[in-house]
Amino acid sequence: MTDTTLLIAGASFSPPERERLEGAYLSAYVNGPSEMAGVDEATRQTIRAVAYKGHHPFGGAEMDLFPNLGVIANYGVGYDAIDVMAAGERSIRVTNTPDVLSDDVADLAVGLILAQSRSMVFGDHWVRSGQWAEKGEMPLNRQVSRKRAGIVGLGRIGREIADRLAAFKMEIHYHSRSEKDTPGWQWHADPVSLAGAVDFLVVALVGGPDTLNYITAEALRALGPDGVIVNISRGTTIDETALLDALEDGTIAGAGLDVFLNEPKINERFSKLDNVVLQPHQGSGSVETRHEMVLLQLANITAFMDGEALKTPVN
Amino acid sequence: MTDTTLLIAGASFSPPERERLEGAYLSAYVNGPSEMAGVDEATRQTIRAVAYKGHHPFGGAEMDLFPNLGVIANYGVGYDAIDVMAAGERSIRVTNTPDVLSDDVADLAVGLILAQSRSMVFGDHWVRSGQWAEKGEMPLNRQVSRKRAGIVGLGRIGREIADRLAAFKMEIHYHSRSEKDTPGWQWHADPVSLAGAVDFLVVALVGGPDTLNYITAEALRALGPDGVIVNISRGTTIDETALLDALEDGTIAGAGLDVFLNEPKINERFSKLDNVVLQPHQGSGSVETRHEMVLLQLANITAFMDGEALKTPVN
Repeated sequence: MTDTTLLIAGASFSPPERERLEGAYLSAYVNGPSEMAGVDEATRQTIRAVAYKGHHPFGGAEMDLFPNLGVIANYGVGYDAIDVMAAGERSIRVTNTPDVLSDDVADLAVGLILAQSRSMVFGDHWVRSGQWAEKGEMPLNRQVSRKRAGIVGLGRIGREIADRLAAFKMEIHYHSRSEKDTPGWQWHADPVSLAGAVDFLVVALVGGPDTLNYITAEALRALGPDGVIVNISRGTTIDETALLDALEDGTIAGAGLDVFLNEPKINERFSKLDNVVLQPHQGSGSVETRHEMVLLQLANITAFMDGEALKTPVN
Repeated sequence: MTDTTLLIAGASFSPPERERLEGAYLSAYVNGPSEMAGVDEATRQTIRAVAYKGHHPFGGAEMDLFPNLGVIANYGVGYDAIDVMAAGERSIRVTNTPDVLSDDVADLAVGLILAQSRSMVFGDHWVRSGQWAEKGEMPLNRQVSRKRAGIVGLGRIGREIADRLAAFKMEIHYHSRSEKDTPGWQWHADPVSLAGAVDFLVVALVGGPDTLNYITAEALRALGPDGVIVNISRGTTIDETALLDALEDGTIAGAGLDVFLNEPKINERFSKLDNVVLQPHQGSGSVETRHEMVLLQLANITAFMDGEALKTPVN
């Protein structure tokens, strides 16, 4: 019998995703990093690759449980849960799944702008509950086209979002560390300046310590009472307490949010707000994209096993 | 005292809209065409213009109540409620409010595609109801970008929709009476051929008898079990019984609908469906656009009163 070589780690893998991974390599399974110490010693010795899906910290202590571990293949573009520095110190490679999910995440960002501004969740409820028949027109809402959009972080996903919003005749502004080559989009040196110049602020940053609370209470004040913020990045990128305060007291008009601190047990204040559209971190959640993601995760593992160049390495 | 010159007809005018019209001309008010016969004879004699908002039939019999009527200024681009032939026979001009609402309606069409395909109404409920915290990820949904879109009716609004969907990397197909000058979009001679070639079928026809039940049961079968239909035109343009059957039995995957027969007292079968996003005919329902619409309606009336060229004549 071949030795186990793959550890599948993540309670959120779907049955078809697990089957795909299990079909490729002899594998063991844990729900997440916290269960890794419970894998028996003999199996731990044989693990050469981890297929990871999740947002719980995966650090050096867990890596040390697997002396022959060579690659951690992350499912998702954001790998902030994985301590990449610790991996590097142990000569462990890390991969992620960029590009294949950019379209989906950008689609959801635009969907959040449209659903929030045009009161679409409320509108669906207005029809289904019979209030349309009973009370007539629902209250008016706010236009989307021809407004000003500000993208925070003009990486792969940020660019896809900007391209779509340009088709809504929006004036595109962005903030990134340095000015980029764009079709006339306006760069801002800091997020507060950006927020002050736009109607929609769309956060498309990477997660991790460098972007912790990147959008501050000051940026939300600059966005102002007609402004709407959209976050499809990580809950950590916005000062969440400041965001909740701003949504409750009218400092900003509303929000469209796919990500939160402490997902999925998010702050209960969100559910009481009627000026937000909330999504359960489903930016990449289409059948088509999730299939592409597990294929790319597996392709990275296979490349490592076969001694070939990794498809989408992080380190 | 100046004679009354304007009849404001429509229960759905908002208070600011009515104020805007009342501030311009000495006016009388009725909830709709059915109340016009109740206006006293002396007032009827003085009416030269009707500002209309609504979807109830406004025919020759109502026009004959006002012997000095010269213009019916419709609020909205679709004037299918007004019998334009009867108006012409009486030398009554008809105007509408095109262009100013095209962006809003196109925005809502794209919003319906995104909300339906990415399960956004369901997603918001999944978060707010606590099911995310309790059960984890919601079921996967369907990708929007890189699919094929089919526009039925490539007028002003249809074109705006196509322009936006092109930014989602969609292949654009369309059906209109004759082939049009487009950036490589594919024309189809009939709606069934179009439906068979696409993933999303977006109906952007004008209303009225010429387009009654234009989308048939056959077209819905051609769209198929992965297809989604979006209607932002009029409830009359789709065979509604065939649509409800197709949504209930899986002939098509889903729908995003802003318009229905017998609005706002729509067929109760719609509210039971979980594969549709329903909106209360709010395509042009932003504060910004509704303001532009009443201004254009009034500009047409003023042009008529002043003997100048109408801004946006229908006949």
